[in-house]
Amino acid sequence: MPKQKGNAPLGPYLLFLGDTVERGYAKTAFGLRDWAPHQCVGEFALPDATVTLDLPRLTPAEAVDRGARSLVIGVANTGGFIAEAWIPALVEALEAGLDIVSGMHAKLGQITELRYTAERLGRRLIDVRTPPVDIPIATGLKRSGKRLLTVGTDCALGKKYTALAIARALSARGVDADFRATGQTGIMIAGGGIPMDAVVADFAAGAAEILSPDAPADHWDVIEGQGSILHPAFSGVSLSLLHGSQPDVFVVCHDQRRTRVLGDEEFAVPTIEEIIRLTIALGSRTNPRIRCGGVALNTSYLSAEEADALCASESERLCLPVADPIRGGPAFDRLIDECLKP
Amino acid sequence: MPKQKGNAPLGPYLLFLGDTVERGYAKTAFGLRDWAPHQCVGEFALPDATVTLDLPRLTPAEAVDRGARSLVIGVANTGGFIAEAWIPALVEALEAGLDIVSGMHAKLGQITELRYTAERLGRRLIDVRTPPVDIPIATGLKRSGKRLLTVGTDCALGKKYTALAIARALSARGVDADFRATGQTGIMIAGGGIPMDAVVADFAAGAAEILSPDAPADHWDVIEGQGSILHPAFSGVSLSLLHGSQPDVFVVCHDQRRTRVLGDEEFAVPTIEEIIRLTIALGSRTNPRIRCGGVALNTSYLSAEEADALCASESERLCLPVADPIRGGPAFDRLIDECLKP
Repeated sequence: MPKQKGNAPLGPYLLFLGDTVERGYAKTAFGLRDWAPHQCVGEFALPDATVTLDLPRLTPAEAVDRGARSLVIGVANTGGFIAEAWIPALVEALEAGLDIVSGMHAKLGQITELRYTAERLGRRLIDVRTPPVDIPIATGLKRSGKRLLTVGTDCALGKKYTALAIARALSARGVDADFRATGQTGIMIAGGGIPMDAVVADFAAGAAEILSPDAPADHWDVIEGQGSILHPAFSGVSLSLLHGSQPDVFVVCHDQRRTRVLGDEEFAVPTIEEIIRLTIALGSRTNPRIRCGGVALNTSYLSAEEADALCASESERLCLPVADPIRGGPAFDRLIDECLKP
Repeated sequence: MPKQKGNAPLGPYLLFLGDTVERGYAKTAFGLRDWAPHQCVGEFALPDATVTLDLPRLTPAEAVDRGARSLVIGVANTGGFIAEAWIPALVEALEAGLDIVSGMHAKLGQITELRYTAERLGRRLIDVRTPPVDIPIATGLKRSGKRLLTVGTDCALGKKYTALAIARALSARGVDADFRATGQTGIMIAGGGIPMDAVVADFAAGAAEILSPDAPADHWDVIEGQGSILHPAFSGVSLSLLHGSQPDVFVVCHDQRRTRVLGDEEFAVPTIEEIIRLTIALGSRTNPRIRCGGVALNTSYLSAEEADALCASESERLCLPVADPIRGGPAFDRLIDECLKP
């Protein structure tokens, strides 16, 4: 997996929650807790925080004693900046012996106190949203190995969780599989990857190519999708990722409650069928054998019976396996079967 | 037109040809000579150069006497770097009173001698490939005014020249029209624009949005296309530009000789019909009224009669106006008529 060039985040992690009172702002911390639990020794928050991960509450020094190597900023605020109020806690982490890992747009090194403290103590300030510097222009050439890409009808409806769940299910079946991260939380979970949204446009497909390099013929890369090819702001990122990933199989992620594009209410969310049709039309450019492996629905708001019924009726309507990867079960098994079809 | 934030290139220009012996490497100089002749006071080359623009050969001091304000590096080499051998000539230009304008990937200020000389003399080093710093995330919201985008079946087959020719033809008919540049040569010709290939992927559609802002209802922005939505490396740039430009009309640029993708021989150039179909399927997301205004063919390798015959037969085959915008004539008039249809 491509690392952040000598700047890969090193676990185990202490998860920093700042002064956060909204679960939604702690996406990164929850993602790490859910998908890399063995990497998370505990949580650390300011007194005003009300969000908890239900992990041991540790000071940085206690976390170091339990083997932590980095403090991860597990929260975001609107604007993606490092709040003034967090800085003493971050300095305390550096003093205790931890690196600091951030996925925010703002760079850690731009905060003088953090930069000086890290330099003085020889700690690393790791911005995972910084792409590698030597990304080539894409070639489009076919690479060996199998690839699966999660795509979406919109942003933020489960492409990362779906890719992680599929990679885990493949591994559970004894299939050699890697999750390939394309966003900051995914990169922290995987310990590597490329933040697609921060790559210069001309190099975006090239970034997707180096993210999933040549591999043995029976190896699967399961690639975290970004945005949607019909998202008015992020379609270019999605198409670069589609062409550069050259997936054999894609899985469409959708949430039935989402009828308008997140943050862009002017636009209706496209239908699953539209996304399938366009993904095949465009994706066949770099992989003529591209096909849809199924649909992943977010059904967290439904009872188990309701979720099963919805997946069954959507599966019948679309003639494809439809499952909630977080619930798993027979429907998800059928989706995995379909993805693995030769 | 969005300028390079206090860093807009100022004409008239002296065109620098370096030590170039290949016309193909002097694309920027020829583009400026052809499309902004009133801005070009002369050419300046090293003794080894064999390429000429047939403009007066002037020293920087002579060019200043004739009103020049900037020296434009009108050539590129493979790699896009500033050759050592050019530096004394560039310093001479600064000493004579000229700013230096470059569209190369390498930044002028990274060359110590240029940076020091420019600082000492108060001259500007202008890298037009540097995008503005405050590009917003795209909204997809409909803007007032009319927009035309040139799209391509491949890179480097006439999207800039076609857009310039259409903008000129519209102005000649008394239509209020602006050429909107998206690449370095276009930016120098127009005196503004945004280098789409240098924008971070997440902001690429936003860049296209601010490039063609709200305008009077009968105003046309003619936007220079980039790449191709089926180019394995640059499709993301093309789709961001399509969604952000929200064109009412697009014109497909094609060259019949080009059967394989430039620099990517593995791939066949897509058909004109494929590009029309996909451009409508994708472009209708931000402008449901999008339509194809015709096809621009590069016929520079044909006689006038052969070019006319090719355009006529393609026009019949595609049921669309087909013309070579550089030749003009009745076929191009019909293409402009089609673009302007209400």
